[in-house]
Amino acid sequence: MPHSPEPLPAPRLGEPYLLTPGPLTTAFSTKEAMLRDWGSWDADFRAMTKSVCDQLVALAGDTTGAFVCVPMQGSGSFSVEAMLGTFVPRDGKALVLANGAYGLRAAETMRYLGREYTLIDKGDYMPPRGDEVAAALDDDPAITHVVAIHCETSSGILNPVAEISEAVYSRGRKLLIDSMSAFGALPLDVNEIRYEAMVSSANKCIEGVPGFGFVIARRSELEAAKGNSHSLSLDVHAQWAYMEKTGQWRFTPPTHVVAAFLEALRLHAAEGGVAGRGARYTRNRDVMVEGMRGLGFETLLKDRWLSPIIVTFFCPADPAFVFSDFYEKMKQKGFIIYPGKLTVVESFRIGCIGRMDEHVMRRVVQAAMEALAEMGVASAAPPEAAIAERAKLAA
Amino acid sequence: MPHSPEPLPAPRLGEPYLLTPGPLTTAFSTKEAMLRDWGSWDADFRAMTKSVCDQLVALAGDTTGAFVCVPMQGSGSFSVEAMLGTFVPRDGKALVLANGAYGLRAAETMRYLGREYTLIDKGDYMPPRGDEVAAALDDDPAITHVVAIHCETSSGILNPVAEISEAVYSRGRKLLIDSMSAFGALPLDVNEIRYEAMVSSANKCIEGVPGFGFVIARRSELEAAKGNSHSLSLDVHAQWAYMEKTGQWRFTPPTHVVAAFLEALRLHAAEGGVAGRGARYTRNRDVMVEGMRGLGFETLLKDRWLSPIIVTFFCPADPAFVFSDFYEKMKQKGFIIYPGKLTVVESFRIGCIGRMDEHVMRRVVQAAMEALAEMGVASAAPPEAAIAERAKLAA
Repeated sequence: MPHSPEPLPAPRLGEPYLLTPGPLTTAFSTKEAMLRDWGSWDADFRAMTKSVCDQLVALAGDTTGAFVCVPMQGSGSFSVEAMLGTFVPRDGKALVLANGAYGLRAAETMRYLGREYTLIDKGDYMPPRGDEVAAALDDDPAITHVVAIHCETSSGILNPVAEISEAVYSRGRKLLIDSMSAFGALPLDVNEIRYEAMVSSANKCIEGVPGFGFVIARRSELEAAKGNSHSLSLDVHAQWAYMEKTGQWRFTPPTHVVAAFLEALRLHAAEGGVAGRGARYTRNRDVMVEGMRGLGFETLLKDRWLSPIIVTFFCPADPAFVFSDFYEKMKQKGFIIYPGKLTVVESFRIGCIGRMDEHVMRRVVQAAMEALAEMGVASAAPPEAAIAERAKLAA
Repeated sequence: MPHSPEPLPAPRLGEPYLLTPGPLTTAFSTKEAMLRDWGSWDADFRAMTKSVCDQLVALAGDTTGAFVCVPMQGSGSFSVEAMLGTFVPRDGKALVLANGAYGLRAAETMRYLGREYTLIDKGDYMPPRGDEVAAALDDDPAITHVVAIHCETSSGILNPVAEISEAVYSRGRKLLIDSMSAFGALPLDVNEIRYEAMVSSANKCIEGVPGFGFVIARRSELEAAKGNSHSLSLDVHAQWAYMEKTGQWRFTPPTHVVAAFLEALRLHAAEGGVAGRGARYTRNRDVMVEGMRGLGFETLLKDRWLSPIIVTFFCPADPAFVFSDFYEKMKQKGFIIYPGKLTVVESFRIGCIGRMDEHVMRRVVQAAMEALAEMGVASAAPPEAAIAERAKLAA
């Protein structure tokens, strides 16, 4: 059993915990950092931007200057689009690996860009494996880049990016990673896993508030990407070149969100960086999953693929279970949960990330137990179809 | 002389006033609204988004449902790009009216989109006039849309959008307006000035914090714009269609920034809406310009073209005046000013927008006087070249 450190303080204004994959519950001091205004042109703010970028490159494990960080205004999907538009050349071709909404969104982005791509779609949650990627690359020499999702938050599956990277570079291609909901809590060290660029955002495992994302990219690859972008706003090369020259963002940055992120980075470091953050989330998941299974709920995924980010549970087969009622009851008890995104069976999700700990997770399980009782749900067991669906994963 | 109401409170954490065109100084209560976390999927946040959109449409004067508001993550330039990419069809052609950096940026955006455009470039600040627009439209029947900048913050000039709109619609074309730094303080009523879409952002005259922009568009025009966008993230039609269906933003919204904006809208209404806000900014400008002229500074623009948003002053000819020193001294005295953007002569800018009033503006003038004295600047008079430059405007 993991140790139980002192409980983290509850949200000071009494709002529900966000058991969602971002926006998530943040520390009060992170939000307090937004209580002053900053001039985006001013040297003080430029220093804040530089500190953010330097710390993010360090989190990615680069100590040589081979990688740079480029923040980008907007949501995480804006940064994904920026990465794809900047790094996949107009005459390139991407292989997109999808097993859920975020992989499919990457493919949809390529369609918008009017650039060539092909898709391996594994359905709701089956992981794309290294050997499949290798075979697809062998079959199609036109593919220049592979796009992988680190943690697919539709299901919560942790995709095997290490073996995917091996396959990609053994075939002489390049890897781009969407590590939106994983970076900062799961290792993605440039010295361990080879890639050209990855993307994440402020309001995920580093526990900032939403408003910008960031691309961490190999400098040489970024230098070569000039002119690729389909969009002025989302041009990572132009954003980087301007920042290198001036220390400023090209267009108005979300100054308060950046200030909050600096405090979030301070707390991240104080917790022991990626290892410490990942350990807390893992405890959150273990305590929550054990408790929910104790109530009769079943997870979509077997333990092997379960990420410490977000967990998908099947909705109970019992007709007394109505998700919208369950959601409201959980909210009244102080917990905002997340609807499912599976296409085959009904499901819901509970996030493990954000400023909360195993003590909170025990109360989540308690709240779920009470909600079931209030709804008159006798059993939390999933329908037969769900079990059949899950059996595919073992095959 | 305008009346002098009770002074607005100073920034509570003692930071300098931002005499810049956004990010700007905001009310403390606006920032305090960011002290809690919101679930972006939750009904409470959906209601906040709806309230923001309803209030913005009302500010634009629409009471018939003919116009809709679509918020867009990112800086204002992201929203400008979103508007251009969504409303100028792929086989359309835009006439871009430029007299400064923002007009040129709109043209650069069209270049990125790979869509046809032509440019009327009036240089640093000369206003594009209705008759020129009419002539250009007569000359080129391929032009489908005209893009105008309401207040060009490079110089602070208030462009004549009413006469531009007349010219555009008398020729059967369509108008798109970048009202980034004007909307909320200067009237842009759909019943008075005809246009298809306009764009502004949270951190301008409504005095929110930066993190999103918004497009206010004629519903029928937006409905017809499906499939035009070059970008998944910046597709205004897709954002709107999803919001209509779900009440949610397509991708993670900057929840805290939205909460702050709601408070900013409340303060805006309490001040008397567009008229009240515009009146305060006008007093700010009048007091500040009168004071600065009293010190010997000269404005780039004659009063006719001077906006109540931001004012450009020529740098003094006196060699003892060094802008970077002036900037630092002003900052030490509590005021962050803005560098100039003119290409011909040296200049700087002082913004009139944000949570401050004429009492603050008097202290700005006092600070400028002290800074000049400390630098040993004997006269704030501009060089001959500046006067010659300005004479062009009268011609």
